[in-house]
Amino acid sequence: MGIRTEQQYWDSIRKQKTKVYIMGEQVENVIDHPLIHGSASGAALTFRYANEPATRDLFTIHSPLVGEPVNRYVSIHNTIEDLMDKVKLVRFVAQKTGECAQRCMGWDALNAVYSTSYETDRKYETPYHSRFKEYLKWVQKNDMMVHGTMTDPRGDRSLKPAAQKDPDLYLRIVERRKTGIVVRGAKSHQGGILNHEEFLAMPSVSLRPEDKDYAVSFALPVDTKGITYVFGRHSMDDRLLEGNQFDMGNTKFGRYAMWVFFEDVFVPWERVFLCGETEFASMIVERFAGLHRQNYGACSAGGMDVLIGATSLIAEYNGIANAFHVKDKLVEMCALNETLYQGSLACSSQGEITPSGVAVMNKLLSYVTKLNVTRFPYEIARLAQDICGGIIGTMPSEKDYRNPEVGPLIEKYLKGVASVPTEHRMRMIRLIERMTCGRTLLVCMHGAGSPFANKMMIGRYTDMEEKRIFARDIAGVPEPPSQAALSSGSAKPLKP
Amino acid sequence: MGIRTEQQYWDSIRKQKTKVYIMGEQVENVIDHPLIHGSASGAALTFRYANEPATRDLFTIHSPLVGEPVNRYVSIHNTIEDLMDKVKLVRFVAQKTGECAQRCMGWDALNAVYSTSYETDRKYETPYHSRFKEYLKWVQKNDMMVHGTMTDPRGDRSLKPAAQKDPDLYLRIVERRKTGIVVRGAKSHQGGILNHEEFLAMPSVSLRPEDKDYAVSFALPVDTKGITYVFGRHSMDDRLLEGNQFDMGNTKFGRYAMWVFFEDVFVPWERVFLCGETEFASMIVERFAGLHRQNYGACSAGGMDVLIGATSLIAEYNGIANAFHVKDKLVEMCALNETLYQGSLACSSQGEITPSGVAVMNKLLSYVTKLNVTRFPYEIARLAQDICGGIIGTMPSEKDYRNPEVGPLIEKYLKGVASVPTEHRMRMIRLIERMTCGRTLLVCMHGAGSPFANKMMIGRYTDMEEKRIFARDIAGVPEPPSQAALSSGSAKPLKP
Amino acid sequence: MGIRTEQQYWDSIRKQKTKVYIMGEQVENVIDHPLIHGSASGAALTFRYANEPATRDLFTIHSPLVGEPVNRYVSIHNTIEDLMDKVKLVRFVAQKTGECAQRCMGWDALNAVYSTSYETDRKYETPYHSRFKEYLKWVQKNDMMVHGTMTDPRGDRSLKPAAQKDPDLYLRIVERRKTGIVVRGAKSHQGGILNHEEFLAMPSVSLRPEDKDYAVSFALPVDTKGITYVFGRHSMDDRLLEGNQFDMGNTKFGRYAMWVFFEDVFVPWERVFLCGETEFASMIVERFAGLHRQNYGACSAGGMDVLIGATSLIAEYNGIANAFHVKDKLVEMCALNETLYQGSLACSSQGEITPSGVAVMNKLLSYVTKLNVTRFPYEIARLAQDICGGIIGTMPSEKDYRNPEVGPLIEKYLKGVASVPTEHRMRMIRLIERMTCGRTLLVCMHGAGSPFANKMMIGRYTDMEEKRIFARDIAGVPEPPSQAALSSGSAKPLKP
Amino acid sequence: MGIRTEQQYWDSIRKQKTKVYIMGEQVENVIDHPLIHGSASGAALTFRYANEPATRDLFTIHSPLVGEPVNRYVSIHNTIEDLMDKVKLVRFVAQKTGECAQRCMGWDALNAVYSTSYETDRKYETPYHSRFKEYLKWVQKNDMMVHGTMTDPRGDRSLKPAAQKDPDLYLRIVERRKTGIVVRGAKSHQGGILNHEEFLAMPSVSLRPEDKDYAVSFALPVDTKGITYVFGRHSMDDRLLEGNQFDMGNTKFGRYAMWVFFEDVFVPWERVFLCGETEFASMIVERFAGLHRQNYGACSAGGMDVLIGATSLIAEYNGIANAFHVKDKLVEMCALNETLYQGSLACSSQGEITPSGVAVMNKLLSYVTKLNVTRFPYEIARLAQDICGGIIGTMPSEKDYRNPEVGPLIEKYLKGVASVPTEHRMRMIRLIERMTCGRTLLVCMHGAGSPFANKMMIGRYTDMEEKRIFARDIAGVPEPPSQAALSSGSAKPLKP
Repeated sequence: MGIRTEQQYWDSIRKQKTKVYIMGEQVENVIDHPLIHGSASGAALTFRYANEPATRDLFTIHSPLVGEPVNRYVSIHNTIEDLMDKVKLVRFVAQKTGECAQRCMGWDALNAVYSTSYETDRKYETPYHSRFKEYLKWVQKNDMMVHGTMTDPRGDRSLKPAAQKDPDLYLRIVERRKTGIVVRGAKSHQGGILNHEEFLAMPSVSLRPEDKDYAVSFALPVDTKGITYVFGRHSMDDRLLEGNQFDMGNTKFGRYAMWVFFEDVFVPWERVFLCGETEFASMIVERFAGLHRQNYGACSAGGMDVLIGATSLIAEYNGIANAFHVKDKLVEMCALNETLYQGSLACSSQGEITPSGVAVMNKLLSYVTKLNVTRFPYEIARLAQDICGGIIGTMPSEKDYRNPEVGPLIEKYLKGVASVPTEHRMRMIRLIERMTCGRTLLVCMHGAGSPFANKMMIGRYTDMEEKRIFARDIAGVPEPPSQAALSSGSAKPLKP
Repeated sequence: MGIRTEQQYWDSIRKQKTKVYIMGEQVENVIDHPLIHGSASGAALTFRYANEPATRDLFTIHSPLVGEPVNRYVSIHNTIEDLMDKVKLVRFVAQKTGECAQRCMGWDALNAVYSTSYETDRKYETPYHSRFKEYLKWVQKNDMMVHGTMTDPRGDRSLKPAAQKDPDLYLRIVERRKTGIVVRGAKSHQGGILNHEEFLAMPSVSLRPEDKDYAVSFALPVDTKGITYVFGRHSMDDRLLEGNQFDMGNTKFGRYAMWVFFEDVFVPWERVFLCGETEFASMIVERFAGLHRQNYGACSAGGMDVLIGATSLIAEYNGIANAFHVKDKLVEMCALNETLYQGSLACSSQGEITPSGVAVMNKLLSYVTKLNVTRFPYEIARLAQDICGGIIGTMPSEKDYRNPEVGPLIEKYLKGVASVPTEHRMRMIRLIERMTCGRTLLVCMHGAGSPFANKMMIGRYTDMEEKRIFARDIAGVPEPPSQAALSSGSAKPLKP
Repeated sequence: MGIRTEQQYWDSIRKQKTKVYIMGEQVENVIDHPLIHGSASGAALTFRYANEPATRDLFTIHSPLVGEPVNRYVSIHNTIEDLMDKVKLVRFVAQKTGECAQRCMGWDALNAVYSTSYETDRKYETPYHSRFKEYLKWVQKNDMMVHGTMTDPRGDRSLKPAAQKDPDLYLRIVERRKTGIVVRGAKSHQGGILNHEEFLAMPSVSLRPEDKDYAVSFALPVDTKGITYVFGRHSMDDRLLEGNQFDMGNTKFGRYAMWVFFEDVFVPWERVFLCGETEFASMIVERFAGLHRQNYGACSAGGMDVLIGATSLIAEYNGIANAFHVKDKLVEMCALNETLYQGSLACSSQGEITPSGVAVMNKLLSYVTKLNVTRFPYEIARLAQDICGGIIGTMPSEKDYRNPEVGPLIEKYLKGVASVPTEHRMRMIRLIERMTCGRTLLVCMHGAGSPFANKMMIGRYTDMEEKRIFARDIAGVPEPPSQAALSSGSAKPLKP
Repeated sequence: MGIRTEQQYWDSIRKQKTKVYIMGEQVENVIDHPLIHGSASGAALTFRYANEPATRDLFTIHSPLVGEPVNRYVSIHNTIEDLMDKVKLVRFVAQKTGECAQRCMGWDALNAVYSTSYETDRKYETPYHSRFKEYLKWVQKNDMMVHGTMTDPRGDRSLKPAAQKDPDLYLRIVERRKTGIVVRGAKSHQGGILNHEEFLAMPSVSLRPEDKDYAVSFALPVDTKGITYVFGRHSMDDRLLEGNQFDMGNTKFGRYAMWVFFEDVFVPWERVFLCGETEFASMIVERFAGLHRQNYGACSAGGMDVLIGATSLIAEYNGIANAFHVKDKLVEMCALNETLYQGSLACSSQGEITPSGVAVMNKLLSYVTKLNVTRFPYEIARLAQDICGGIIGTMPSEKDYRNPEVGPLIEKYLKGVASVPTEHRMRMIRLIERMTCGRTLLVCMHGAGSPFANKMMIGRYTDMEEKRIFARDIAGVPEPPSQAALSSGSAKPLKP
């Protein structure tokens, strides 16, 4: 079939029979639910752009595996150039949606499991990589939308999986059968998973030998029996339920996350890509999260491009576009934003080729990129709220605006500069509200690793000994006897 | 009547007949509307505490004007000690509500108009101060809840009131009659105004001679004919409409703002306290906003105390309370927060007594305090979101939690440490969500002056010449001839 | 004798016979050494201002102990007002010197030992307080300059005093005789100690029972036999040795620190104020350092006033005084600076009276103040360097300026705006260089406690349980059973 | 001759007869002067590494111009890969020196003038590019060390060159002869110029038609008659004159800047590459400064690597290497530092090929990189001073350490952990002092453009209109009529 069209995607995705709860009620035709549809619309763009002449080169690539062009979101990265192109694609999509196309998660998962299964097989002569290649061929040929499914609920975060009071707080194998395995547990905050036809589950933490049952990776259709999805709320979710034209801020696209509950779900062996090899759990985690961190600088920069544009417009609408402090703040926002993008470009440019041939980003630089993503968008948002003015927290509802009694009062008194229609100003304020009070910043904070996780790994991947040699050489301090180097004086790595 | 009880307040406030629109519909019994009631509950505390033995001293004070104790919120500040006590009271109330008691605005307005009317009369032999004293006596004797009403819609912010294309974008006098005046216009984002029986309107900017019709201050009952109120939305308003127990985050108190539209409203002369004396507009603005800035360090510190407490609890519930980085971040939050409080204490301690005998805070230090309030709470909130974890943006709704089908799954999988009930963890997450994604930060940003307004005034009230003398003396540079001092070399003050 | 004159101070201080090494050589008449004299000139101001009509009220106070006015620097704080006045005095002196009058250390030491000896005696019936009162009377009557001497070298900072490999790395008692004690060890970086006639030694850390020999406080003349002083270098010290008029930046005042080595020095009993009562070591440390932290916000604000003034002037000399970004940066510098001052005012205003009647600042707020002092001056300095321009790191020497061959070239080409003499510009650049590249920031960082020490104590003195109660109340979470409160879930305090 | 050896460089550079003043005295054999020699030693490394097997590939490249390998520092960038390699080389050298090899300035100048002269000729049919190619061939064949010489004194910074009261405050042509031109003026703070055999002068600002005489670029030998050099002081320069082993901090390398005065200096036509074409001044400035900004992230990261290494060592020497807050701060330092490096990598990766075939970095991203360089190293230095401890500002001199009387006291009492010699600790403290109090940060602030210059250009090169289109599309706001787009509402670019 090759590269699907947008319509093919919509047709396929609407057919799925998933068990979903939203706000306390089971929902049918979930793809057209107002809390879901905007996010699926973002996903749909990945099909549309793959078919449009202007964007086709960026959104498709030749796959050696199937010998034909495939949608880039189901491709394997073979070169540094592939990594650089990925980053550009990611920013492009974020600029168009102000949110997310959801499809990078699967992309990163495919690359992580492809490369890790290769190395697992090499060590244990397991059949995971050949199975996975078959699976990937099917995915590429059918341009499937595959979700990357990682985070576990984790319960008491000071305890490893097997040490939890309730062993199900990390997804685990509860039964091994001839034909497959049975899994139980949950995956928390899975972004846009219902927009996908398939999901690819992975462990979410490094594991010790006693955590064997948690070392599991597999793929299943999203609407597999035994799986229940529950909608994860965000601060501005209700806005989407009101039936308004603009009070939701982003009038076209959206983002949501689901909790996924597995009540003893069966997985056939041909869909199992890791099963008990605990030492490879951390490789999957690092590869997936690393490729995801690689995106984050570009993705958040793309989202912030929208916010910066909106802020520039509201400054104009408020009549303050030429105030120096406003221009200075806009430049500050841009500088912070391009610093994020620089991170994604840089960690891509310094990537490496792993044994299976998969290109992955530079680890250290990707952790640094993500750490900055947990900080700079917050300052960008703060500046946007500053320039938007107090009305960002007090604007009457769209329903009031459309009410014949008070609508005219709003029309008159919410006017900014005379040349701009009141409704345009209201729309722009709502967009800024959405991007600064909604879920955007939370994703920047927690997606692909919270601040401390990044700091810990920056500590691990920094070659501090090299820096110490530079300093000793310049200060004229001789190298210590090897004894000393091993002594307690040498710092232990950063731990929580 | 003296100091009212909480019940007397509720009885009185429920009797008002105001014309209010919320989300496109006119609302009766507005005080019990879920979007309003939490805020009124905050206001009610100011009556309750004035009657409780443990808090009576903080919440009441002897008024020389009426010769009896009055609620502190209707008192005039006569000493530096009064200012210091105000700051403590304000933090106390914010700690109890996590929001606002709304009553400082009126307090600050009473002090601003009391002192300004005195100085206006002294210059122009106008009758404003004696009128206002009569009004204030009535307010004190009846423990009225009086709102301070300032901000105008402002239209094109690069233009002064009389230069706007629509002259009504600042509240103005459209007619002067024998018995009083008629006003037209609007006041935007008026916090908690419906919880009050009266409001005291003031100009919101300094005025030029041609802005004469905008130099107007007056008091009226909130339910005066001709006034329409429209609810100002905030990011998490719908949550209060769902009928849940905890999904709104703050289960007891709230905050809202109204747009107030004046369609040719009559004000009798005895309620008019400024009428055309443009030069005194800025004195009212500076006094009101200054006393309000004085509060802000303490008020936001009180609110952030709640957020810091919630963050400390969620760290425990997540099992990370003893991670060093968590403890370090909590200390950072506390340090930033006490810096805000220090600002309120300091600007109070360096206050001065104005000609009418009203004590006011130190201007320069109050601007600095407010500038910090536009920054530090954002960093505190960022750290709270960090420690709370990704679940802050993805937690299932309370309705799902109470659903018999998926409720048990949530109960099981949203558990943190084993000893803490899942519901407690969910409640705490909702509170953090509310305080970091809701209106709280927006109020810190824009209440009592946005960042640049504060910076401009810090520039104005800094004695830079004194600092230049210090530097010249130490560097051995002689004072320039007076000519030079007047030259263009000397910097002009900061302007937008 | 009462309050001394400046001349009496100079006469007295020049008579001292101290053993001092500077840059590898023993120095006579050390007070007139160019590395020392500027600092003594700062000290001399404390005598001058006490005798001048305009400043007498700020610099003197009635002492109940001797029944007459004394120099404020040898007084005991009896009221909150005394604390507030102290803060104002401290900023005033820093503004005049751009450096330090050195005399607060002794002031704070006198108050710390006075109040601690009272509480030690109350518990152990020791004679320390009465001895100290006699000492203090002598000090007050003779207006002695007394240094507060605390920091020990500390060797391996992970070990307590008695656990060090070399037991002398904290000052300690090596012999107890009938007539007194003998001490050995060192005190590191003692600011301006040679400007003093006396010093008052104190422990520098909290002690365990086995550290008994380190629990010692005593006073001695600065020129006591057995004590050797070695000059502590700072980045710009050589500049003072060049015999120039302005290349040292601050043309009048200075600052230095000495290492003080005690080679078995005898102290008679009447000068011993703590001797073995380990538990009171931490009280002295906290009182001294606390009163010193109280100063720091005001003192560094005063110093930064000079830097801000210099920056405002150099902006004018460079022709950029009216650039918006320059004005904005100057306001930012002022705002940060006043925030420091607010800290000192606030922690003073919330002080308390200890059992001996000594007023001390609020601990929590003083730690917060000092933490901010380790940060904000760095940003102020960064902005000063920004505005000063690249010449701050490349300006030819004053000797080149005075050279007949190249002097005219410098005169011509280092000109800024035409109206300002080149030399004025050069002087101002040198002052900014001195205040941003010299010792100023290092003192802000490390004086009265480094950042982490302050953070640790902010953690200790924050009432986190109170904040958790606020949060639980608002979220509707019941108090946990007392059992739970004691469990491991409750966070342990912050430690290194 | 091709690639020179280090010895050839030293031999050549010592032969120059320049007229130099340092600290008020004319100096012979300037290359061996202690204030100069460390910097020349850095330059010498560029020759050494070009000849060593391990580094030859990084330090040499084939030049199509001369058809042989040349030292990379005299090469023209032909590809993006060349730009990426440049960035790696720059960090490598900075890590080895802790300072600077000075040779990038010339490298960037050669590329800037090569490419600009090509475009000037294309427009005006001038002979500059062919002349320059001849010059470059000679430079490449002889591996000359060529300085890039740009910054003018600038006088009153609010005035353009021709508007200055003294027309010489920017270097200018004062006479045009048959054989060449005569120039007068000065170039300020020229880093390491005396280490070079040649210099290549360029204009430093964009010019208007009336500034014709200032549009001049040319090359001359450093020891040309009529040129006088005066040493630019830095905060720690005297340390290098004391004849110590380590009190200067960096025991091997250094950095200095000279003021260069031109008293009517003759330049033959074959060395003139721009002469009056004012519109191309800004192209030279942007190309040179842009390529220099490209270096800055890598160069400052390399220097900070040394500082971070030194801080890691001093933490060990102080016994605090395992304190969490120390490890956390070291990670913070690394993260900030890699963010700088990311900037250099990213702006290189997004470079473009200009008409002459010269590859240049992405402008926008290079401005962002440099803006970050004016900030992050300051925070890195602040953290280094924090961890180093108070001794950084009070350590006795090396001369005291070597004094037989007090040396033993210092040896004993300046000990940190028992296993590390006192002298090692002292050396490391001096290195940290040098890198945080010396010139390092000033170069980060002002080299290749001060903060506001970068912000202004970020404003100019940001495609804000594109971002506004994204926002309008998502908010559902139609594009304004073209009329409106041209109206005053559209913001004007950021200006001082």
